[in-house]
Amino acid sequence: MDSGRLEAFSDGVFAVAITILALNLAVAGPGPESLADQLFNHWPAFAAYTVSFATIGIIWVNHHTLFKNFSEIDRTLLFLNLLLLFFVVSIPFATSTIAAYLKSGGHDASLAAAIFQGVFEGMSISFGVLFWWSIRHEHMKVAFTPAAARRATIRFGIGNVGYIAAIGIAFVNATASLVISGLIAIYYIFEQTPARETASPTADSSPGTSPQDG
Amino acid sequence: MDSGRLEAFSDGVFAVAITILALNLAVAGPGPESLADQLFNHWPAFAAYTVSFATIGIIWVNHHTLFKNFSEIDRTLLFLNLLLLFFVVSIPFATSTIAAYLKSGGHDASLAAAIFQGVFEGMSISFGVLFWWSIRHEHMKVAFTPAAARRATIRFGIGNVGYIAAIGIAFVNATASLVISGLIAIYYIFEQTPARETASPTADSSPGTSPQDG
Amino acid sequence: MDSGRLEAFSDGVFAVAITILALNLAVAGPGPESLADQLFNHWPAFAAYTVSFATIGIIWVNHHTLFKNFSEIDRTLLFLNLLLLFFVVSIPFATSTIAAYLKSGGHDASLAAAIFQGVFEGMSISFGVLFWWSIRHEHMKVAFTPAAARRATIRFGIGNVGYIAAIGIAFVNATASLVISGLIAIYYIFEQTPARETASPTADSSPGTSPQDG
Amino acid sequence: MDSGRLEAFSDGVFAVAITILALNLAVAGPGPESLADQLFNHWPAFAAYTVSFATIGIIWVNHHTLFKNFSEIDRTLLFLNLLLLFFVVSIPFATSTIAAYLKSGGHDASLAAAIFQGVFEGMSISFGVLFWWSIRHEHMKVAFTPAAARRATIRFGIGNVGYIAAIGIAFVNATASLVISGLIAIYYIFEQTPARETASPTADSSPGTSPQDG
Repeated sequence: MDSGRLEAFSDGVFAVAITILALNLAVAGPGPESLADQLFNHWPAFAAYTVSFATIGIIWVNHHTLFKNFSEIDRTLLFLNLLLLFFVVSIPFATSTIAAYLKSGGHDASLAAAIFQGVFEGMSISFGVLFWWSIRHEHMKVAFTPAAARRATIRFGIGNVGYIAAIGIAFVNATASLVISGLIAIYYIFEQTPARETASPTADSSPGTSPQDG
Repeated sequence: MDSGRLEAFSDGVFAVAITILALNLAVAGPGPESLADQLFNHWPAFAAYTVSFATIGIIWVNHHTLFKNFSEIDRTLLFLNLLLLFFVVSIPFATSTIAAYLKSGGHDASLAAAIFQGVFEGMSISFGVLFWWSIRHEHMKVAFTPAAARRATIRFGIGNVGYIAAIGIAFVNATASLVISGLIAIYYIFEQTPARETASPTADSSPGTSPQDG
Repeated sequence: MDSGRLEAFSDGVFAVAITILALNLAVAGPGPESLADQLFNHWPAFAAYTVSFATIGIIWVNHHTLFKNFSEIDRTLLFLNLLLLFFVVSIPFATSTIAAYLKSGGHDASLAAAIFQGVFEGMSISFGVLFWWSIRHEHMKVAFTPAAARRATIRFGIGNVGYIAAIGIAFVNATASLVISGLIAIYYIFEQTPARETASPTADSSPGTSPQDG
Repeated sequence: MDSGRLEAFSDGVFAVAITILALNLAVAGPGPESLADQLFNHWPAFAAYTVSFATIGIIWVNHHTLFKNFSEIDRTLLFLNLLLLFFVVSIPFATSTIAAYLKSGGHDASLAAAIFQGVFEGMSISFGVLFWWSIRHEHMKVAFTPAAARRATIRFGIGNVGYIAAIGIAFVNATASLVISGLIAIYYIFEQTPARETASPTADSSPGTSPQDG
């Protein structure tokens, strides 16, 4: 079973989720408030939109990077991928909720921010499980040495811990929590997803190129 | 005619349907009711969303499993697939209807739940017809022995009967009927779609797998 | 330039358009009117949804059948295809308009029905132009004899004339016009799109199978 | 890393964005105003929809033309492409905003038009950066001579300058600015995207085409 259709379906979900994010930007139309004021007062919608767009975009890049190294997929991976997509699909809801409540302050803003970070954390954990399952069950074209897997886990886990911190911070300052999820997105831009780490340290043991496997 | 584009179009429909499910989760925004209360009172929306997400996800997995065994498709299959997609496309409507009416109780809740289960039953029957047509007209790469086809039909049919039962139960208790469709989704996770059943009983005649490959 | 990406983009547009059709089915939620009454009073929405679903589904089947015979595409074809997609994208708007106004009767219902049929006619003409350009500029893998092209044009044109008639009938009886577009959809189910007509009459000149080409 | 999945994801985003443009056309339903009057009064929505549809369609054609010449893609290109998609995803918002405010006149109409043109300008600049990066880092199958690259940059840049002019004109006359973006769309229809320019001047060094193929 190759990963072509899993990728096509996932790309569809990523594409729809990232595009309908912008539906939440809509302004109310002509009324007592000028357009400039409306847009200014909607800043949480634009901020949340930008963070969510970046986060979905980056998880897509990492999904792409992970699956192009897959040698095969099984039924369990299809369902682990569905779990990831469950959180991706929830992002537009979480985004519109934080956009609506960020300026309310108090419990509502904190809860909205905690949901927002919670969905990102769920997405991040699902991706981690997908990665962990892949290297454990040898679904990858490139072999991971224990050291490389450990390093990859640590580097991936930093963002994960960041989202947990952002959930806690949501109850102190919802806006600060939104800023943190923006910083985590930037962290994942510069950080390569770990699937390509091992090429050089274990050139000999890479199963895709050794003569007896081909 | 290969199945590539049928799968691409179907994947698109599955992806859009599964993603717009979440549009229904949207809360009303700041008002007299706190966000926590709003979310708590919206539990039918979250419950129905989860069941529908799981059901579309699983039907996608089964669609994927079925079509990767197709050797060819014909015009009739394109239209049988469209019939399946007709019910898939109706799921967001059925989901938002049950979410809106589940707490109303009485006839409205029962009717909403019956529509919800009815759409799932329609999807399930369409999928069954697609499968039945495929093995009858020899569109599959793996041959089905009569025994394997019979077993597959029974195992697939159990979920189908479950949806019919859920329609009836909808008129007694709408919430119980929603729980049943969640259980059917779990049943289909663990149950392999029947298209891969024949490998062992007909090892010799299975064209795709020579003994040294297994 | 092969047609793979043209098909992928078109499939995406078809898939989104066919899926968001169902957004228009949404009922108002609990209120003075029972759910059963709401659904009953919304019959134009369900009727228009069914006709539009069938029409988009069938145009997708025909698009699929046409493009799998393409040997190459050029920039003009990309734009002719965009013209077709322009009308496809307009179908959800036309569908929600006729659904909203069919029961109003009078000028509003007639205008709504005429727009509905007009969008279908635009889609049908665009498809015809796409087909005509393809055989004229020899973009097809199978050659069309003049007789086969003439026959194909006639059979395709019947549905086209049907939509023109339906525009006229819209001003007499909007509901009758909706029924006619449903009948045209059924006509196109049974009618093969013309691209596969020539195999038998010109078996010798078919370029895809002659020895010196392979 | 080949460009297949980048194209699939981008096609999904283009397809969703171009299709949900039409959601903004929806009329209010039966009321004191006739359907004909409603449609007539909504002319900015139809005009903005047509311009945005054409613009997304054309950027898709150019994206398609650019990427089919790519020999490889890297992580930077994935993120440059995401930047392009960020602006594409913003088009439905910009379109509904100009549609809502064009007839208001004054500051609101100017601001709405400037946002509309600004999103197009952002999309245009992102595409330019994508192109510039591609030829600079030799990601293309066809080599660009300095002269060809210079000519391509000029021809592409004319549209880009057009959008900047349209932003300025938005503050003088919002409707005129909308007309200009329509004219730029027409300009890009007739203007080939520059990626195919070099075939003739460097026939010898063009790796993809041997003389007997041309």
